[in-house]
Amino acid sequence: MEALLEHIAKSISLDATESDFILSCFKPIQVKKKTILLEEGQICNTQYFIVKGCLRLYIINDKGAEQTLQFGIENWWITDHMSLQTQNPTHFYIQAVEHSEVLAIDQKTFDDLLRKLPKMERYFRLMLQKSYAASQMRIKYLYTQSAEERYRHFNHLQPEFVQRVTQYMLASYLDFSAEFMSKIRAGLERK
Amino acid sequence: MEALLEHIAKSISLDATESDFILSCFKPIQVKKKTILLEEGQICNTQYFIVKGCLRLYIINDKGAEQTLQFGIENWWITDHMSLQTQNPTHFYIQAVEHSEVLAIDQKTFDDLLRKLPKMERYFRLMLQKSYAASQMRIKYLYTQSAEERYRHFNHLQPEFVQRVTQYMLASYLDFSAEFMSKIRAGLERK
Repeated sequence: MEALLEHIAKSISLDATESDFILSCFKPIQVKKKTILLEEGQICNTQYFIVKGCLRLYIINDKGAEQTLQFGIENWWITDHMSLQTQNPTHFYIQAVEHSEVLAIDQKTFDDLLRKLPKMERYFRLMLQKSYAASQMRIKYLYTQSAEERYRHFNHLQPEFVQRVTQYMLASYLDFSAEFMSKIRAGLERK
Repeated sequence: MEALLEHIAKSISLDATESDFILSCFKPIQVKKKTILLEEGQICNTQYFIVKGCLRLYIINDKGAEQTLQFGIENWWITDHMSLQTQNPTHFYIQAVEHSEVLAIDQKTFDDLLRKLPKMERYFRLMLQKSYAASQMRIKYLYTQSAEERYRHFNHLQPEFVQRVTQYMLASYLDFSAEFMSKIRAGLERK
């Protein structure tokens, strides 16, 4: 659970009592590969901090195909913020891509944590700012890059990550067909 | 400037001294229609709270066409978070769609405000949570909805707003051609 404290310590300083209190708010979970932590129709009530492994957020589209919208790896947070805030049923699935270790905090405990330790507002504000900045860029790329450009860009930013997920997941995340993905990979490998 | 205080009061309570201090951090600006507040290549250094009017965030794509990625109306915040955080040049433009009244806060003053009045962390955390939730949904719609579905959805959620922007801006925001937009409008008007 030290991973979370180290991550928080980059934004705010904590004494031992505060650290203990924070950890007491989280439930460590070992999540086997392919385990689903949230599924369409449920009310999302939990935020996950990824200590180890990889999770993804996806939807099942009209054609019945999985469409990955987001990946989360070590030190990232993942949840459906809309369902969490509105308490309306989620449209999303959250699933472990690899065997993962996560820290889960439910919404009631989250509110409690912030009420009792308001300095944590800063940590979460900074995290959300980063996430939101990334999603502004993501939307830009979805509008402007071709599938191939998206792949090269993603591969450049996250070269190791590309090896951790299936071609199918990455193809849906980057919004192109698995066939095109195979072509690109074959092309790059030849260089 | 009361609009901002009212907006903040929905999340946290403020006394008169705190309210005065907050207002002292913002610079009210009257922005004429089409004025550009941020342009590609600049370092984004300012967050804007919209008191009245409408702003948009857009890019100029490879073909030289404007592509609107985001609109902001009354009580919304707008900025390029990535450039603001990294202090790298922005890819975006921010422009007034209508004559607008905005409150501007530069990054140094923003940091100062949060240092001196840490309870404001909560307000900004909540705002970012909403913005991020909206962008998660936005990305979902970009992947799953057809142009026509996006238009109907947007028109349903923001019927008055649709009247405030040009067809050209809305068409680029919803990622379809102005021709298709005209067709849809004509179709709806006939019903």
